[in-house]
Amino acid sequence: MQKICDKMKTILLLLQVFLLFVDGSYNDGTKQWSWICNTSRKCEKVPNAPVHKYFYNRQEACRLICGQYGALWPRPTKDVDLSQDLININPSSISFQMLNAIDEARDFLIENTQLFLKNIFLECGKNCSAVNNGLDATVFISISNSNMDLNWSTNESYSLEISKAGGVYVTITAPSAFGARHALETLSQLITSYKIQENGIIHHQFVIVSKAVIKDKPQYPYRGLLLDTARNFLSVHTIKRQINAMASSKLNVLHWHITDSQSFPLESVRVPQLSKYGSYSSKNTYSLSDVSDIIRYAKLRGIRVILEIDAPSHSGNGWQWGREAGLGDLAVCVNQEPWRSYCIQPPCGQLNPINSNVYSVLGDLYSDIVDILPKGETFHMGGDEVFIPCWNSTLEIVNYLDSQGQDRSHESFLALWSYFQQEALKKFDSKVGNENTPIVLWSSALTEPEIIEKYLSKNRYIIETWVPSDNDLPTKLVERGYNIIVATKDAWYLDHGFWGTTEYHNWRKVYQNRILNSPSVLGGEACMWGEYVDDTSIDSKVWPRAAAMAERLWSDPSSSTSAAEARFYRHRERLVARGIQADAVTPRWCYQNEGMCS
Amino acid sequence: MQKICDKMKTILLLLQVFLLFVDGSYNDGTKQWSWICNTSRKCEKVPNAPVHKYFYNRQEACRLICGQYGALWPRPTKDVDLSQDLININPSSISFQMLNAIDEARDFLIENTQLFLKNIFLECGKNCSAVNNGLDATVFISISNSNMDLNWSTNESYSLEISKAGGVYVTITAPSAFGARHALETLSQLITSYKIQENGIIHHQFVIVSKAVIKDKPQYPYRGLLLDTARNFLSVHTIKRQINAMASSKLNVLHWHITDSQSFPLESVRVPQLSKYGSYSSKNTYSLSDVSDIIRYAKLRGIRVILEIDAPSHSGNGWQWGREAGLGDLAVCVNQEPWRSYCIQPPCGQLNPINSNVYSVLGDLYSDIVDILPKGETFHMGGDEVFIPCWNSTLEIVNYLDSQGQDRSHESFLALWSYFQQEALKKFDSKVGNENTPIVLWSSALTEPEIIEKYLSKNRYIIETWVPSDNDLPTKLVERGYNIIVATKDAWYLDHGFWGTTEYHNWRKVYQNRILNSPSVLGGEACMWGEYVDDTSIDSKVWPRAAAMAERLWSDPSSSTSAAEARFYRHRERLVARGIQADAVTPRWCYQNEGMCS
Repeated sequence: MQKICDKMKTILLLLQVFLLFVDGSYNDGTKQWSWICNTSRKCEKVPNAPVHKYFYNRQEACRLICGQYGALWPRPTKDVDLSQDLININPSSISFQMLNAIDEARDFLIENTQLFLKNIFLECGKNCSAVNNGLDATVFISISNSNMDLNWSTNESYSLEISKAGGVYVTITAPSAFGARHALETLSQLITSYKIQENGIIHHQFVIVSKAVIKDKPQYPYRGLLLDTARNFLSVHTIKRQINAMASSKLNVLHWHITDSQSFPLESVRVPQLSKYGSYSSKNTYSLSDVSDIIRYAKLRGIRVILEIDAPSHSGNGWQWGREAGLGDLAVCVNQEPWRSYCIQPPCGQLNPINSNVYSVLGDLYSDIVDILPKGETFHMGGDEVFIPCWNSTLEIVNYLDSQGQDRSHESFLALWSYFQQEALKKFDSKVGNENTPIVLWSSALTEPEIIEKYLSKNRYIIETWVPSDNDLPTKLVERGYNIIVATKDAWYLDHGFWGTTEYHNWRKVYQNRILNSPSVLGGEACMWGEYVDDTSIDSKVWPRAAAMAERLWSDPSSSTSAAEARFYRHRERLVARGIQADAVTPRWCYQNEGMCS
Repeated sequence: MQKICDKMKTILLLLQVFLLFVDGSYNDGTKQWSWICNTSRKCEKVPNAPVHKYFYNRQEACRLICGQYGALWPRPTKDVDLSQDLININPSSISFQMLNAIDEARDFLIENTQLFLKNIFLECGKNCSAVNNGLDATVFISISNSNMDLNWSTNESYSLEISKAGGVYVTITAPSAFGARHALETLSQLITSYKIQENGIIHHQFVIVSKAVIKDKPQYPYRGLLLDTARNFLSVHTIKRQINAMASSKLNVLHWHITDSQSFPLESVRVPQLSKYGSYSSKNTYSLSDVSDIIRYAKLRGIRVILEIDAPSHSGNGWQWGREAGLGDLAVCVNQEPWRSYCIQPPCGQLNPINSNVYSVLGDLYSDIVDILPKGETFHMGGDEVFIPCWNSTLEIVNYLDSQGQDRSHESFLALWSYFQQEALKKFDSKVGNENTPIVLWSSALTEPEIIEKYLSKNRYIIETWVPSDNDLPTKLVERGYNIIVATKDAWYLDHGFWGTTEYHNWRKVYQNRILNSPSVLGGEACMWGEYVDDTSIDSKVWPRAAAMAERLWSDPSSSTSAAEARFYRHRERLVARGIQADAVTPRWCYQNEGMCS
């Protein structure tokens, strides 16, 4: 009986496929174009398409099955085998079977199936009216381990298979729920929908690649995006929107540069003065529960949040109240003029390394952070751009050096800086209760390869380099045994082009930036420094460029941008469909005529 | 009796002013900052403000009266005298008296008073809860002429006075309704609102500069923004949003580059094939009624729409159907590959100058346009970047030259191009019914100063130059008696920075671009070429940079960007409040601390 049923279903299906391609052309008064996957594996725009299943009246349908990687972004790293045809599915009849996930992992997967469904309907558009004249689909999700720690050793790999037998069957297998999440993201990119007309009414037909075998895992464990909420405030809503886009591109670390000399928007419960004095306004703050909420929101999308409290430099506003409170100067040079004498960028400010109250206050702030950080989560302590003339012009500090028999040489100030770092770390460790938390620091005068070992232990510190691509600092630090994160200044600094003599890095430049390949290179990140961006323009400055980096860090392909172009353009449209105001990267003609603008 | 009433009102007012500054500090748990207009005429952020009427708890209130030009953008050109204090007004009790406007002018002014009210409430924010504990205001609007033609000779000047006597009285005097519209825009920039707390409930207090005398008129009659809807489609909604921002910045020409070789989104009634073959999709088109709607929408905001149908180059998609229709090739080289041999940018295409059907089709298209254009409105015929190798490789054209005894020299092709221009113009004139319409053409090989007089009459053509600022083409064309519009490529091309080796022009570069000062220079424009922009990012690529140019063309100040900075930053916030996703131009700290980041 079951067999007869299956047969009948198959016959019905074939009939539907045939009808789809007969009735599928949506006649709306304009010239009817179709797309066919040509021998160069480009979707080619052709007029007057014949009635044939390999011609599609929507380019996105053709793109799904054209080329080795179809519409997938980032492209998988290992086996990818996609069939050359599509089948109709019923989006309202996609069911999910969690085979062995328990507890948090099970809830995580259930929520992710909802996000998956939301994404495929977003793609369908505002007035989505899905027809259910295709096959039902069942997605089996099997994970080997329900451990829900998201950290450096999380196994993000997955395999995904689509097959057809009566219905559509999708099998996702992954070592972790996070890998399975990536598989669901991939699955959403194997589905699209397009308009059909039935009895004069427009509906949307959902289609899926009929057969697929994918094995995938990322090349680098750290694939980050830095957001800076101190130069300009970003709303929680905006931050979550970036997280959505990151999830769509399989990025996995949000590096949150939450404070800087300009403002201190983080509301510390133990040190409320920091945001009271340092936020731009009462609205421009993040409560600890806002931060927790963002951490949860990100984790659900397979993304860690690494918080950065930059110190001792890049600290000023928020730290002005020490003297008033009887704690002495917690920061020096705050807002001092002429700023060029005391810092690299106005307003100036550096923490006062010789005031022991600074470490108590930092300790209280760290306590608040430790309260909300996932256990063991890496912490970023900043540590860039200490501007020695500030300390060197502060009487209290200069007198201290004198009293210690120290001169005012570069080395003396490096020692003072290093002292600050040690004391701050001690405080952090005392709040955590152990000395195991990985700490990230920006590359700086303290991380010069010749001297770094004197100041910073390779067992404790990860160095985030932010030098141009032709600088050998990453190589030298790796040679000395340090783990590094690479934020290539002349490719992945997304603020460039909008100030000074910096140059904008278009998506091709971002994509082409291959970083050092070594187990010590944990990954890289795109940095959206906040001087010239806020809620209004961040989407278009970050996206889709950060997605170009995402493929570099996920798959690290040796092929060029021209091999990635059609998929990348498609991914931009995907981001827009999902509510991200991603920038346009090509004239639409070039999108519709793949490969013809190279 | 009236006098006693007025006295009582004054006493009440004084009481209210006092109460405002006592109760006005909105205690929301953060440090209370205030702003005072200091001796350098900057709004200075100070803690713990004393209760005094010159301290404001919102920076925007201070900005209104600080510096000669307060918060005005663009700054007026002639007399500006602003008082140093604010008075409370009741936004719900602003009344308007049209003293002598009739017919369309009267309707125009009434609608503009509504737009004015909308704008001041937008500034107040989403949850605006205005208190009416101030003065009522009456705005008297007097215009000398109710003629509603908006053209090259429209007098846009106005004078505006604010005085206080019992109530607030605003007197607007202008030669035209369009001048009065600018005055209303100025008036909206003399008003702001801020939060106050009354019995624990947050309200918004509206304030206006208590006394003002302004006389104003623009330096240049053409202050334009080019939008390109061919490289990427822009929705009608997006175009209207640009018009709103233009009106807020007193720009007065929308130059609509509606078609190009990539696409032809304009639905011609007489030649439906153009958009049928040339639009990206059935949704990506403008009906003639869409265009009319946009022209009306713009006119209500004092803005002309100049349509451009670029020809004979920059034409391709949309023109492919000639042979099929028995009209021969209307365009040649369409989508031809390798594109570098046939055009400057893919896809290639140029109209076929020797096919007489081209002129018939153009004539039909022009008829549609003439139907919807305001009488006498200037028309832009493009005429840039004819790529000779295209025509020179087209057998039909080459044979024609042979048959005419012409060689294939540069001069022969210029003559052919000029022939095209003459024939196209004849068609246009025949549809208009006279030969008086001013025609704009881009500078090109045909407009080289040495030869332009041979091809293009200075009585008929306005040349739009698009050379870099150090190029003397504008000077040479003016010397030869041509009227010009200046689109300085290395300052006002807003697409630069996002492709090739071009550089992004930040607002300072845009602002600093002083163009040739001559009665023959009609003005200038910012060009938002559309290759790398569509609905998602256009606001932040155009704004607030186009507003920087707006002040250059309205007031042409000799002062530098540092004198404009605080007002410009304020204007960016104004645009955002009005729904424009204008880019961030500075860290918020620099916005809040005027003059401290120079």
